[in-house]
Amino acid sequence: MTLVTLPGQDWVDAVGPVPGLELAVWDMDGPPERADEVKVVVPPYKGAGPRMPNIRHATSVELVQLLTAGYEDVQALLPDGVALANAAGVHDASTAELAVALTLASLRDLPDFHAAQQEGRWLPSAIHPALADKRVLVLGYGSIGRAVAARLTPFEVQLTAVASRARAGDELVRSVHGVDELPTLLPDHDVVVVIVPLSDATTRLVDDTFLAAMPDGALLVNVARGGVVDTDALVRHLQAGRLRAALDVTDPEPLPAGHPLWSAPGVVITPHVGGASTAFMPRAVRLLREQLGAYAAGRPLRNLV
Amino acid sequence: MTLVTLPGQDWVDAVGPVPGLELAVWDMDGPPERADEVKVVVPPYKGAGPRMPNIRHATSVELVQLLTAGYEDVQALLPDGVALANAAGVHDASTAELAVALTLASLRDLPDFHAAQQEGRWLPSAIHPALADKRVLVLGYGSIGRAVAARLTPFEVQLTAVASRARAGDELVRSVHGVDELPTLLPDHDVVVVIVPLSDATTRLVDDTFLAAMPDGALLVNVARGGVVDTDALVRHLQAGRLRAALDVTDPEPLPAGHPLWSAPGVVITPHVGGASTAFMPRAVRLLREQLGAYAAGRPLRNLV
Repeated sequence: MTLVTLPGQDWVDAVGPVPGLELAVWDMDGPPERADEVKVVVPPYKGAGPRMPNIRHATSVELVQLLTAGYEDVQALLPDGVALANAAGVHDASTAELAVALTLASLRDLPDFHAAQQEGRWLPSAIHPALADKRVLVLGYGSIGRAVAARLTPFEVQLTAVASRARAGDELVRSVHGVDELPTLLPDHDVVVVIVPLSDATTRLVDDTFLAAMPDGALLVNVARGGVVDTDALVRHLQAGRLRAALDVTDPEPLPAGHPLWSAPGVVITPHVGGASTAFMPRAVRLLREQLGAYAAGRPLRNLV
Repeated sequence: MTLVTLPGQDWVDAVGPVPGLELAVWDMDGPPERADEVKVVVPPYKGAGPRMPNIRHATSVELVQLLTAGYEDVQALLPDGVALANAAGVHDASTAELAVALTLASLRDLPDFHAAQQEGRWLPSAIHPALADKRVLVLGYGSIGRAVAARLTPFEVQLTAVASRARAGDELVRSVHGVDELPTLLPDHDVVVVIVPLSDATTRLVDDTFLAAMPDGALLVNVARGGVVDTDALVRHLQAGRLRAALDVTDPEPLPAGHPLWSAPGVVITPHVGGASTAFMPRAVRLLREQLGAYAAGRPLRNLV
């Protein structure tokens, strides 16, 4: 039997059994038992990078399967000849769901109603913004972007997808626009949902020029990374009452007490909880079963990086 | 030209022109101009009932087209031989959208994050509930119920529809269950969205027995009418920490200051804003154009009651 380590007994119970494989627990806080037999290592969800130096104890390891989409810190510490797979996809449902939750909460003024509820006040009737009929631009059209688009489609919106380069569309959008088209697209959209990976090309992509191109009253939703947005520029647009924002990620992060973004008008902030939901574990377990099954059977692996 | 009155110049501007019809303004706060020529009356959105006695001034009226789904107060005051049409359908998008917004806000703990934001506090990371994988029961499967189901479908949920009687399903659900099946269905559902019309049969349908049949930690979402839920029973289940609730309607309504529901744990309350959104006007205008076009052309009318 080929030995595979998982980061806790809960993972062993949830994933196993897998034909042909023996599943054991290794939290990577020291050497594993039967160190020279371990072929596959699944590091802990949190803190995989800091624990990676201990991978040297597993002298026969062939594959490291992460539970996160990010892998840069792990890759640098990986011994030669060891394959690395990430967990791209397991956060799609959770993050896309939060993007829609933030969009709806902001548009339908749920924070105002929450504040009124704290005071036991029934606010007088008024017309509040709806998501229906809004022109929504999804910036970043990878698997999470598509998951956002799929969830927005039944809300009777006009959907525009933007990726690094223009390409053909899919069953959700007629075409995917290139990021170079943003200057002409932004003025015609009421909501922008940002879900690009953070890279040199996307750092501060949402700068003052970007924000200035959004129409008055438009909503910026960021479920990507804080660094994609120029926070100072966003605070200025919020304080001027020009835009709304709903942010699951910020720069700096965590946002320190007293930062002007906390109290800017029209902003909703959640503390980077896009992926941290009950949707994670079942999807991660499904991925591990597929990958370990493929490994045991000698079939090609997914998500190799 | 056949004379039609609308409740304000904004409605005339938004709806017109309609071939064969002359559109004029009448707010029903007194007699209309050219009273004996008016054939169709569209009363104001709010306060149609109290103004209905003035319909007697319009001696040639043939059709009253409401802007609301409710019509009981108007029907009682209608002169003999005058047709009445309601505006069923124009609130579907708005109300269904709020039902999903409330569901997501409650599950993803947005009120906790909002409270932390007020204090400039970044909450530590934790696993929060997601909508994904939840078993959702939509109670009331008319046009709003179907609109709720359509919006929930891409969220990777298990959907169950319940109506007054069991019937065949549609493209969203395999079958529609009858309300008599609730006792066996409720224990297996994490979220119940209530969108039944208020009637003798549905008054306090969600009573202590109903709530007791919901599993621990389940969420009740009410976007129907407050009277469908036994408020005292709900408060008991909330205070026991057994259930969550997200309510756009309450009994009594407006909920008075100091009522225990305001501060019960795990409850989100919005002040009956399901239909009061920017989604209303475009859909109402679309309905009026269709109805007035049909009236002018002698074609059958929709929504006659």
